[in-house]
Amino acid sequence: MFRDADLLIHNALVLTLEPGAPPLIQGYVAVQGGKIAAVGQGAQAGPLLPARERLDAGGALVMPGLVNTHCHAPMVWFRGLADDLPLHQWLAEVIFPLEGGWLDPEKAYWGALLAAAEMIRGGITTVADGYFFAAEVRRAFAEAGLRAVAAQGVVDFPAPGVPDPGDNLKVAAEFLASGHGLPARLSSAIFCHSLYTCGPETLRRAKELSRSRGALFFLHLAETREEVQGLRQQTGLTPAAYLDSLGVLDEQTVAVHAVWLEAPDLDLLARRGVKVSHCPESNLKLAAGVAPLSRLLELGVPVGLGTDSAASNNNLDLWGEMSLAARLHKVWRRDPTALPAAAVVALATREGARVLGLAESVGTLSPGKEADLLLLDLAQPHLTPLYDPYSHLVYAARAADVTHVMAAGRWLLYDRQLLTLKFAVIREKIQVLSRELAPRPRKTPPPASS
Amino acid sequence: MFRDADLLIHNALVLTLEPGAPPLIQGYVAVQGGKIAAVGQGAQAGPLLPARERLDAGGALVMPGLVNTHCHAPMVWFRGLADDLPLHQWLAEVIFPLEGGWLDPEKAYWGALLAAAEMIRGGITTVADGYFFAAEVRRAFAEAGLRAVAAQGVVDFPAPGVPDPGDNLKVAAEFLASGHGLPARLSSAIFCHSLYTCGPETLRRAKELSRSRGALFFLHLAETREEVQGLRQQTGLTPAAYLDSLGVLDEQTVAVHAVWLEAPDLDLLARRGVKVSHCPESNLKLAAGVAPLSRLLELGVPVGLGTDSAASNNNLDLWGEMSLAARLHKVWRRDPTALPAAAVVALATREGARVLGLAESVGTLSPGKEADLLLLDLAQPHLTPLYDPYSHLVYAARAADVTHVMAAGRWLLYDRQLLTLKFAVIREKIQVLSRELAPRPRKTPPPASS
Repeated sequence: MFRDADLLIHNALVLTLEPGAPPLIQGYVAVQGGKIAAVGQGAQAGPLLPARERLDAGGALVMPGLVNTHCHAPMVWFRGLADDLPLHQWLAEVIFPLEGGWLDPEKAYWGALLAAAEMIRGGITTVADGYFFAAEVRRAFAEAGLRAVAAQGVVDFPAPGVPDPGDNLKVAAEFLASGHGLPARLSSAIFCHSLYTCGPETLRRAKELSRSRGALFFLHLAETREEVQGLRQQTGLTPAAYLDSLGVLDEQTVAVHAVWLEAPDLDLLARRGVKVSHCPESNLKLAAGVAPLSRLLELGVPVGLGTDSAASNNNLDLWGEMSLAARLHKVWRRDPTALPAAAVVALATREGARVLGLAESVGTLSPGKEADLLLLDLAQPHLTPLYDPYSHLVYAARAADVTHVMAAGRWLLYDRQLLTLKFAVIREKIQVLSRELAPRPRKTPPPASS
Repeated sequence: MFRDADLLIHNALVLTLEPGAPPLIQGYVAVQGGKIAAVGQGAQAGPLLPARERLDAGGALVMPGLVNTHCHAPMVWFRGLADDLPLHQWLAEVIFPLEGGWLDPEKAYWGALLAAAEMIRGGITTVADGYFFAAEVRRAFAEAGLRAVAAQGVVDFPAPGVPDPGDNLKVAAEFLASGHGLPARLSSAIFCHSLYTCGPETLRRAKELSRSRGALFFLHLAETREEVQGLRQQTGLTPAAYLDSLGVLDEQTVAVHAVWLEAPDLDLLARRGVKVSHCPESNLKLAAGVAPLSRLLELGVPVGLGTDSAASNNNLDLWGEMSLAARLHKVWRRDPTALPAAAVVALATREGARVLGLAESVGTLSPGKEADLLLLDLAQPHLTPLYDPYSHLVYAARAADVTHVMAAGRWLLYDRQLLTLKFAVIREKIQVLSRELAPRPRKTPPPASS
């Protein structure tokens, strides 16, 4: 077992998220050297184990930290700046101009700090981010103590930090080659934005680059019907078939959104071992569509949940994604038994880790894995009574119920207090600079009939 | 204006929810005799007004308390007890047997107290509840300080407190005639459960009874496709047309769910002045369907949001309903401009008040109306930066962001502390008795592919 833990969390309801494992009543988790040393249960066993630090969870729920498989952290700057618009208009008229003319490395860094604060408060311990100035994002996540895959954005037009698109892969290669001295929990990847912003040569070469570095390759795939129709007119192929013709689909590829997939596309993704990031709140808000989640799971495609950006969501809260995923696919399939609660909790933890190639190190509370976990306060009206903890996590719990968060054995949140980030400083910085974008609240309530 | 307010809330971002009114920067709200005495703005004006008690909101948002237009409060006992089942199986195999054999007046009372605690913590100040033992529910809400319409449930089979269904209208009539001495913010109504649990004579007589008392009449209408198909086979009519043939549809009727409506049904509801309660989280969780919300609003039908019960939702949180309503109808209509944020906030406040016939007294922060309001803490990562408060309320805010809640000029929640209810006592009571229903957590996570 273990000799002398650094930390023992006891008197908890522990969900290990190991497949088939029952909830551990009066459970405990021991942490040693940043890793999980032991997990078990018993009213006597826990308190008696030797440990330098003890935390009586007081009946709180302990589970693996959440894994956010898709984010664009610096876009917190644009949270609520322009809502209720179609994706392409929103990108072309609001987001791309601001990214090109306003964002700079410092703003990307501060935005990523704010995003990290929000994610930690909501129990996220691992995030995969895709954006420009990815080295700044990676630096912010390193400071925040998060586990992260930071991916450098690639598009075939001028982008933040890449004024000449001819340099897009050079910048990406430099990013992949950098980051020496950062903790091992930070890794680097490539994020080709989409098929409508990256040409075939860019896609092929970006994938070659990530392969050569053993890095993940992210891409927004078949997010809207317009994207699929546009590509079909150009090439006669669906987005998945087109990517396959470029040799881009493999087990190191994460297809984000994956909404408008036909049956052969689904089979193709499954055959190639492609992973999927499902972002239902963003997909609904942009009216993009509803991804065939149940079919993907039936085919054995690993799927994780993603928040997407605060500009399109507008939060970085995986509890909302869980609640929505569980509900949405029931009504979409006209089957109230679709996506049961426990399966959805698995998507936000164990399966998310699989999507990011981190299944060996995080996603479940298993001895030998990294100590990435959260505590959730069950002593609240909306979580009372308690029959089934998975049900509560999906259908009733919220980000604010998370009280403690640990990544790699280090507390990031303790008793709802951020330990690695100074939110007051971050907020002041963001508030002052965001005035450049919009000086004051703009909208008024429309009449009742609107 | 006013002479000497009981309370002055100042230094707030005030949303009055009056149609067309802009957000009030450095706003204030004065309360006198349980009513709103004044609303305005100005960094100097607010602090200088005379008032016996002052609350510096510190930049928090102040808005009308939320209006929950549909709930079954005592069903908190069944929260998470049985999920992921079809509506009719869930009702027949789980809910109806427990209601018949297990619930009693005391449990209904304690359940309603727990529901009240959850709703107050989430900023709800007015709730319309439909259940059995309605006098117990009404008593609990009175103690909690909520504004409420408590409706006595009516079905044509044995029900909690009504072992002989032949007594169902007698019990309802006695309930309507009772309640003397309760504050004016408590009113009473009739809730005929549905067309598949109430025959035509019951519906007709229940509506006559509520008309004779000037009481609202609630009914689950066209919640599932099966309900519509079943009635059509029996009568050849849609549920709305059938109810109209019984003379039940009028301005005092609240149709709950209203999912499976055809064009003539929509016109009929609009013509009769029927109100609608929209409960999207419950509708999705039970895979019932998606209500034609945009069409109802286009036709001028007053629509409010409802949580439905904690057994089918599984929370009593209108922030989740707002977030889901805004997103769901965008994807359903394939129109990202559908249901903009400000319109959704109106549904949860002003329009909800209209649905319950309370538009004269609550739903906006207007001088002369009842002082029902909430404060929401904007100084949080997920609400930073701030460009548009309506966007944040719908797409990013959560129940836990509410810090203060007032109804009829009385604080129910202050600095996140419940003032009228002792949650620890309620929780203990619920925890002990709920063990009779299920002794321990039951589910284990299924394999990844499930």
